[in-house]
Amino acid sequence: MRNILVIGIGAGNPDHVTIEAIEALNRADVLFIPDKGEEKAALRHLREAICARFIRKPGYRSVPVTIPRRAEAGDDYPGVVDDWHARIAASYRGLFESELAEGETGALLVWGDPALYDSTLRIMERVAASGLDLDWQVYPGISSVQVLAARHRIPLNTIGAPILITTGRRLAAGFPVDQDSVVVMLDGEQAFAKIAPDGLDIFWGAYLGTADEILLAGPLAQTLAEITRVRAEARARHGWIMDTYLLRRRVAA
Amino acid sequence: MRNILVIGIGAGNPDHVTIEAIEALNRADVLFIPDKGEEKAALRHLREAICARFIRKPGYRSVPVTIPRRAEAGDDYPGVVDDWHARIAASYRGLFESELAEGETGALLVWGDPALYDSTLRIMERVAASGLDLDWQVYPGISSVQVLAARHRIPLNTIGAPILITTGRRLAAGFPVDQDSVVVMLDGEQAFAKIAPDGLDIFWGAYLGTADEILLAGPLAQTLAEITRVRAEARARHGWIMDTYLLRRRVAA
Ligand SMILES: C[S@@+](CC[C@H](N)C(=O)[O-])C[C@H]1O[C@@H](n2cnc3c(N)ncnc32)[C@H](O)[C@@H]1O
Ligand SMILES: C[S@@+](CC[C@H](N)C(=O)[O-])C[C@H]1O[C@@H](n2cnc3c(N)ncnc32)[C@H](O)[C@@H]1O
Repeated sequence: MRNILVIGIGAGNPDHVTIEAIEALNRADVLFIPDKGEEKAALRHLREAICARFIRKPGYRSVPVTIPRRAEAGDDYPGVVDDWHARIAASYRGLFESELAEGETGALLVWGDPALYDSTLRIMERVAASGLDLDWQVYPGISSVQVLAARHRIPLNTIGAPILITTGRRLAAGFPVDQDSVVVMLDGEQAFAKIAPDGLDIFWGAYLGTADEILLAGPLAQTLAEITRVRAEARARHGWIMDTYLLRRRVAA
Repeated sequence: MRNILVIGIGAGNPDHVTIEAIEALNRADVLFIPDKGEEKAALRHLREAICARFIRKPGYRSVPVTIPRRAEAGDDYPGVVDDWHARIAASYRGLFESELAEGETGALLVWGDPALYDSTLRIMERVAASGLDLDWQVYPGISSVQVLAARHRIPLNTIGAPILITTGRRLAAGFPVDQDSVVVMLDGEQAFAKIAPDGLDIFWGAYLGTADEILLAGPLAQTLAEITRVRAEARARHGWIMDTYLLRRRVAA
């Protein structure tokens, strides 16, 4: 039996790791550090910084994991994701077998919280289903959504009302008529600029928790041009961007 | 100018505090510990345990805050909440003025994450609006929703799809037709037992993160009787309960 600790490490600020996550990092024999290619080098650096700062065990072993690229989705999005996850699971299985002895413990460092738009837990199910004798535990981490709210000093919900967390792709179809608080992640298409802006406020954040953090907020109609411009400039300067935002229906005072 | 640190402390497990939260606790001159009455004594004990364990400063000062009770909501829910928040804000203002000198820093310890179904940030806005010269910063904390997902080892969303976080009161109107992942909090009425259960799975958790944690999961139709029974027993035994769950539409394999 091999054991894997799936550890949420926060979304950019090393101070957002929990005591529990630090303990878990220190229990691992091997740390698996995913590498998703050049544009994500900054994220890999955060992971390495967290290990260097919080792991007390001298000479811990870390193993880079090359995450295969996803094919362009085209018409068959579920099929493409399924195939992609199968390849990732196969590569993890290979690494667990070659890098961990029976009885050893590995750690997977997951960006933000493992429960939010992350496929690691689905991939663990697949690796186990492929027949490898495996157990795993999950440690929550502060997600980018929580950092967004904290930095803007706002609750995500209005009193007693729901919160919808969704993707840019979904938001592009329009702000949901039955919601008043919508958090948008994974927005590569600036969907906030494609919807009817009237009556909505936006609370936007990029590179949250890092030294490059940018926050902008205001009525969507008056703010969307500035966010579009600031986002494009920042993206050009850094070579990559991660941003999240809350859209909130304004209530008449 | 007085300064207040609004600190998320996790939802039951002291190991869920972040490094950032610990630093913030150690910067405070005074800790304000809310007291919501007998049934919440267990929660007050967690707050005290966190202070005792993580505050290095000897002889830190902690001040209990008696939170006024909310009137029964009746017909005018927004009006009752508004009035209740006004009374809480007045009591915080009084404490900030009497317990903090100009230039001093207080800390408010918030259950879980301050952005999720918590009124502290709205109350801070009110205290500031009442004319007290005040600044505040917010530190995210691991919320009960994240602990639920971690302990069940599940992602909250299905691939590329939204997550709705809502209340028991809202769920009682029916499982939303356009959602497949719905997290329910603040459910005093066991709304999961009032909706059409077919095609839904439930992942339920009570006293998450504590030594009394209970987890149950399965198809809602087959599991709801057991959850109802276990919940009633636990509630009777402890005198109080806090539970949260994810309902997920099952996909045909
Ligand atoms: C694949 S999801 C992973 C989310 C992660 N599990 C979490 O809990 O934050 C990536 C998306 O999260 C958001 N995100 C992650 N880190 C961020 C950061 N530091 N600043 C702003 N948005 C971030 C962006 O919306 C990005 O498209
Ligand atoms: C007023 S809300 C506060 C939520 C908190 N801010 C958070 O982030 O978890 C209280 C609700 O949170 C959920 N909750 C909080 N702590 C919990 C725990 N330890 N176990 C299960 N549910 C919990 C319950 O649904 C409860 O009704």
